[in-house]
Amino acid sequence: MASNSFYAIVAGVGAGTGGAVARRFAQAYPVVLLSRKPESYSDIVAEIKQAGGQAFGISADTGDAAAVASAFETIQKELPGKKLAAAVYNVGAGRSFRPFLELTVEDLDSSYHSNARGLFNFAQKALPLLLESVNDSPHPPSLIVTGATASLRGSAKFADFAAGKFAKRALAQSLAREFGPQGVHVAHVIIDAVIDIPRTKNYTVNNGAPDGKSSPEALAETYWHLHTQHRSAFTQELDVRPYVEKF
Amino acid sequence: MASNSFYAIVAGVGAGTGGAVARRFAQAYPVVLLSRKPESYSDIVAEIKQAGGQAFGISADTGDAAAVASAFETIQKELPGKKLAAAVYNVGAGRSFRPFLELTVEDLDSSYHSNARGLFNFAQKALPLLLESVNDSPHPPSLIVTGATASLRGSAKFADFAAGKFAKRALAQSLAREFGPQGVHVAHVIIDAVIDIPRTKNYTVNNGAPDGKSSPEALAETYWHLHTQHRSAFTQELDVRPYVEKF
Amino acid sequence: MASNSFYAIVAGVGAGTGGAVARRFAQAYPVVLLSRKPESYSDIVAEIKQAGGQAFGISADTGDAAAVASAFETIQKELPGKKLAAAVYNVGAGRSFRPFLELTVEDLDSSYHSNARGLFNFAQKALPLLLESVNDSPHPPSLIVTGATASLRGSAKFADFAAGKFAKRALAQSLAREFGPQGVHVAHVIIDAVIDIPRTKNYTVNNGAPDGKSSPEALAETYWHLHTQHRSAFTQELDVRPYVEKF
Amino acid sequence: MASNSFYAIVAGVGAGTGGAVARRFAQAYPVVLLSRKPESYSDIVAEIKQAGGQAFGISADTGDAAAVASAFETIQKELPGKKLAAAVYNVGAGRSFRPFLELTVEDLDSSYHSNARGLFNFAQKALPLLLESVNDSPHPPSLIVTGATASLRGSAKFADFAAGKFAKRALAQSLAREFGPQGVHVAHVIIDAVIDIPRTKNYTVNNGAPDGKSSPEALAETYWHLHTQHRSAFTQELDVRPYVEKF
Repeated sequence: MASNSFYAIVAGVGAGTGGAVARRFAQAYPVVLLSRKPESYSDIVAEIKQAGGQAFGISADTGDAAAVASAFETIQKELPGKKLAAAVYNVGAGRSFRPFLELTVEDLDSSYHSNARGLFNFAQKALPLLLESVNDSPHPPSLIVTGATASLRGSAKFADFAAGKFAKRALAQSLAREFGPQGVHVAHVIIDAVIDIPRTKNYTVNNGAPDGKSSPEALAETYWHLHTQHRSAFTQELDVRPYVEKF
Repeated sequence: MASNSFYAIVAGVGAGTGGAVARRFAQAYPVVLLSRKPESYSDIVAEIKQAGGQAFGISADTGDAAAVASAFETIQKELPGKKLAAAVYNVGAGRSFRPFLELTVEDLDSSYHSNARGLFNFAQKALPLLLESVNDSPHPPSLIVTGATASLRGSAKFADFAAGKFAKRALAQSLAREFGPQGVHVAHVIIDAVIDIPRTKNYTVNNGAPDGKSSPEALAETYWHLHTQHRSAFTQELDVRPYVEKF
Repeated sequence: MASNSFYAIVAGVGAGTGGAVARRFAQAYPVVLLSRKPESYSDIVAEIKQAGGQAFGISADTGDAAAVASAFETIQKELPGKKLAAAVYNVGAGRSFRPFLELTVEDLDSSYHSNARGLFNFAQKALPLLLESVNDSPHPPSLIVTGATASLRGSAKFADFAAGKFAKRALAQSLAREFGPQGVHVAHVIIDAVIDIPRTKNYTVNNGAPDGKSSPEALAETYWHLHTQHRSAFTQELDVRPYVEKF
Repeated sequence: MASNSFYAIVAGVGAGTGGAVARRFAQAYPVVLLSRKPESYSDIVAEIKQAGGQAFGISADTGDAAAVASAFETIQKELPGKKLAAAVYNVGAGRSFRPFLELTVEDLDSSYHSNARGLFNFAQKALPLLLESVNDSPHPPSLIVTGATASLRGSAKFADFAAGKFAKRALAQSLAREFGPQGVHVAHVIIDAVIDIPRTKNYTVNNGAPDGKSSPEALAETYWHLHTQHRSAFTQELDVRPYVEKF
């Protein structure tokens, strides 16, 4: 079965990591882009097509199980006979950075919704498809999950954000241990960085050092490398940060 | 202000750790026991009273913010003028131990509800009271949170359980970093053990070795030690396990 | 066998943690104090005796296997028939805090010598004695090892110091896993603090906050608690730091 | 400056990871192979040359500072005007897997010698050269260090082995934090695997599953990826293991 019989899906696409990962994987596969709003993916879909790739977008809130189920039904219709080679989960609400006593339980729920429940719903639909690709996909079928500094560390004023990120990491670990032996590569990428995107243009990070924010394209190369790892040498977790980042 | 001007509250009380912690802290303070159902705390309340201590129970689901608010109002009425010296959060739903594709999002939600949302609600009510005790409580006011092996490790078939436990740990860390400098001791106890309670009597653990399950009373001594630590030497996290436990 | 049939040994005694631990354990046992130089332990030995306890000191470099062997022979002669209940390893050279390219291999060797080789030599002599006490010591026989922030984190300019501390932690973990099931409690204490001793009197730590340095006596209470833990609930590792310490 | 103005050095070359890394980097650079004995590198040097690459070997014990200094002098003579782009430290003595009380301090010293002192000596010579390459090397100059399962975990009967591996990881972390901001990429690879080499041919690993041992070539691809990461997205640490490995 040729490599154009496979596709990739990237959830959480926008100007940063998700978009760059979609573009990178589009060099090898048709790519489905998933975001809550069309304006998050429409430009990237157009860009991929213009570069000669195949792509389309679907609007869905991954925290909503029915919406995710519906998205995967749409994919099956749009890409009949194609099999899933890679699924990337890059969704995760922004940090609130507020004192704990000013947070509401809705802040916590929102972080949980996008980071943990969303990954859960996405993985429940993606994993059965990835399992079907174990024998013939060009690279081991992969589920790659985006984490953050807060995946490893509950800092002051990051209670809601860290709770969601920790839970997401727990899921990624558990899935790696359950599905790795079945041939699916589940990896967790801890991005310890501000991403270099238009929205962060005016952020002064790392004293304004050149390359002091992570380039989405650079991150995407690492996601691609993870996907291409041989099954005798899977990485479950790695960190990425600018050379000047304190850690 | 004398030590009988202070009280402790233990959420998640039953035959195991929570009950033993309540009994231990009742040697020093009146204790409020919080559980979803009266049958979880009624025996222990009676036991504490019989031993000459003060205790009463309140039924509340900690994952429900309104129920927690109501419980704390009841406490203020029942213990007028008393201040909070220690709050222990020992709630956390049992593990499901099922393959990921057999779980439903309700399993995940349930783990999140009791482990993370419950601690969030409880801490939002307890922390303002603990802050008020910083200057005069007999020991640094403490919020002690119970974790598990799954707080550090997402094992295969523990996706839902680990997600809740990781999120709980994130909260405990973040609260320690925010409230420690204000004088409140937030600690997280990783219990890597089967607890020795009637329900686990027939479990063969650690090849049936004597003391191969953790004694709730032994655990309670460590909770009490954490509460009594001087503010110049707070422990944020420790593990506890039977001597024969593999780790 | 009565508790005065047992003794404790503390290696690495001076004005700080080791001295306070020796004083604390001397409330229950005769204590042997081990340091490279008599001036490190002589005052504390005198202090313990004045308070009605039993103590004596031995000069030895724990990194020197023959010196450690000789020290344990002396102990057997001085305390005939007594058995070892607790051994504390608190030795560890100070940090150099210099850029890596200014360090010499002797700096690294020195950190290794006191932190890792010293613990190795000490444990090889103490563990057989602790094993003999499993059945009758008042508390589970214990080997407690002092670590530092650098046990978990290799910071810039801490290459030599962190290498020794990491190695020491590896030993403590390995010994816990081998000797725990045999009934010996091996614990590792990560002290993330400046200790409040005469030498650090003029250090401004944590903006000069009261109790911003760890009280040796407070630390010693936690060492004692570790020693008294029931074998069904051993702690392998915990951290301790002042409430105001950033982490 | 063209890429053939740069070279790579790999210390700890044999039939496994080191040899495969040397072959992989030889596709881009002349490669210097360092091992204690010529028989460890001579076949690989020949293989690289036959494939059209440039390579030569030097015999040196990295734990011996003078031998390492001499090796780097030889390199400067053999490759006049060339600059160092990548240095890989893959040295580390085998595990003894013996009960602690059967080990001698020489076992510990030996693990320290090859894992920690060796990396220290190697890094002291390599880092000044890597710093000189920051502005013009084809990829950020890199120091990549090989770790093992025992870098993170002190298992029973791995006291000596784990002590060396922990110390090595401490050095790698400290160097990453000191030299990263200067533009040198220091990464640590945790190989949680048996390597698939002639010596392990008859080991039954992971129930004999295909690809149950790590392919050296697969590992080498990940080392190469680390070297090619953009400076805005450096990985400091990652794990690699066969899909069927328990962890």
